[in-house]
Amino acid sequence: MKWARVQGEDETVFVGVIVNDTFEPRAGLGSDHVTGPIMDMKTLKLLPPIEPGKFIGLWNNFKAAAEKGGMQHPDHPLYFFMADTAVSGPNAEICMPQSAGRVVFEGELGIVIGKKCKNISIEDAADAILGFTCVNDFTSIDILHADPSFPQWTRSKSFDGFGVIGPVIETDIDWNDLTIRVLVNERERQCYPASDMILSPEKIISCLSRDMTLNPGDVIACGTSIGARPVKPGMIVEVVIEGIGTLPVQIV
Amino acid sequence: MKWARVQGEDETVFVGVIVNDTFEPRAGLGSDHVTGPIMDMKTLKLLPPIEPGKFIGLWNNFKAAAEKGGMQHPDHPLYFFMADTAVSGPNAEICMPQSAGRVVFEGELGIVIGKKCKNISIEDAADAILGFTCVNDFTSIDILHADPSFPQWTRSKSFDGFGVIGPVIETDIDWNDLTIRVLVNERERQCYPASDMILSPEKIISCLSRDMTLNPGDVIACGTSIGARPVKPGMIVEVVIEGIGTLPVQIV
Repeated sequence: MKWARVQGEDETVFVGVIVNDTFEPRAGLGSDHVTGPIMDMKTLKLLPPIEPGKFIGLWNNFKAAAEKGGMQHPDHPLYFFMADTAVSGPNAEICMPQSAGRVVFEGELGIVIGKKCKNISIEDAADAILGFTCVNDFTSIDILHADPSFPQWTRSKSFDGFGVIGPVIETDIDWNDLTIRVLVNERERQCYPASDMILSPEKIISCLSRDMTLNPGDVIACGTSIGARPVKPGMIVEVVIEGIGTLPVQIV
Repeated sequence: MKWARVQGEDETVFVGVIVNDTFEPRAGLGSDHVTGPIMDMKTLKLLPPIEPGKFIGLWNNFKAAAEKGGMQHPDHPLYFFMADTAVSGPNAEICMPQSAGRVVFEGELGIVIGKKCKNISIEDAADAILGFTCVNDFTSIDILHADPSFPQWTRSKSFDGFGVIGPVIETDIDWNDLTIRVLVNERERQCYPASDMILSPEKIISCLSRDMTLNPGDVIACGTSIGARPVKPGMIVEVVIEGIGTLPVQIV
């Protein structure tokens, strides 16, 4: 099932399920309770499918990128948080602040947590996953390395709009089968298999749940692989994961 | 005024103002609207005074600590975010997970944002401050430096309960006059003046507002100075800022 958050013409916000070109409003994410008539998707605007309590991003989690960068494989997720105000959704206009310098796109697979979990095993972690979404984790590479005493992971990722999520949360999918692609002005710039991950979604969730309580709606971006590149105003950048959907944004 | 969040005996949560030993419930943080009868503080449990949308922590923001560590003074805040699930309040029991290794207390001054702000000047920043609170920013120093390729600021600070806030938000206070003290089992272990800050609260807010939108309720911990030390189960650790209050926790 494809879960989405949408806004109607009168700005009312709905959570529900997309079926073909229609939207069925539900009482909440994962709920069976239908709350109103079916709507035409043409009349609705897609929002980020979730407002995450925690928006966690991983670094160095793909073998191809680790090999290219000469990096060791971590045995625990290396992560940062993105700001609540960084979250944006499908078709957002992403503003490049002058102070951010060079900014790269990073197409990623996002895990959406469905159950509260703490200290869970790898075996139990699959049950804690509600579904998967596309993430574009925009990063200012100039800010990241601007201060040699303190890599600025948080700041470089947290400009307004830099954490793009969507278009939907797909609940019936095997992450092993997915390919993450990024198109810039329709030209393919990233294309890598999710199966190249160093730490699997289940391992990531198990490890994180030993650090902190994970709650429904928390989002974990699994890290990116090779091919991230700087963006410029005017570009259309799309993260495409077949089976989930296409997440386009415009750089302004 | 001293703003607090409290829980009554039937677990109802109130936001309001503490006057001597009584609590006056209000419609929300900063609201003039009184919503019910005055209560006796003895019947109420103090909660963290705010559930921050963003909980931002600074590193290297005190001159004495920078001098001791041989660190340059930054001209922009160096920061990380703490997890929503890390937030705890007065009299919390803070559990030390075995995986966290050595954990230190860090007594800090916390700024609570009162207005939405974006790209504001230093001059306008004072207006964006609702008030100040005490913060104890517990940090696993073993995790922070465990991976030479990636300093784990986020993970080392984000275990459940590690971000202690309270006991109140004091709105009528000049931060220049404040002294941040930490007592461990009643023995003073940190004592430093807020006026030793490298970047002032107004400068921090102005800089952060150029990176991201700040919202009412966001909390910024201003960083700590010298004297942070490891904690052990059984210890009572209190952050004391005269004019705000005392924020005790028990290590378990």
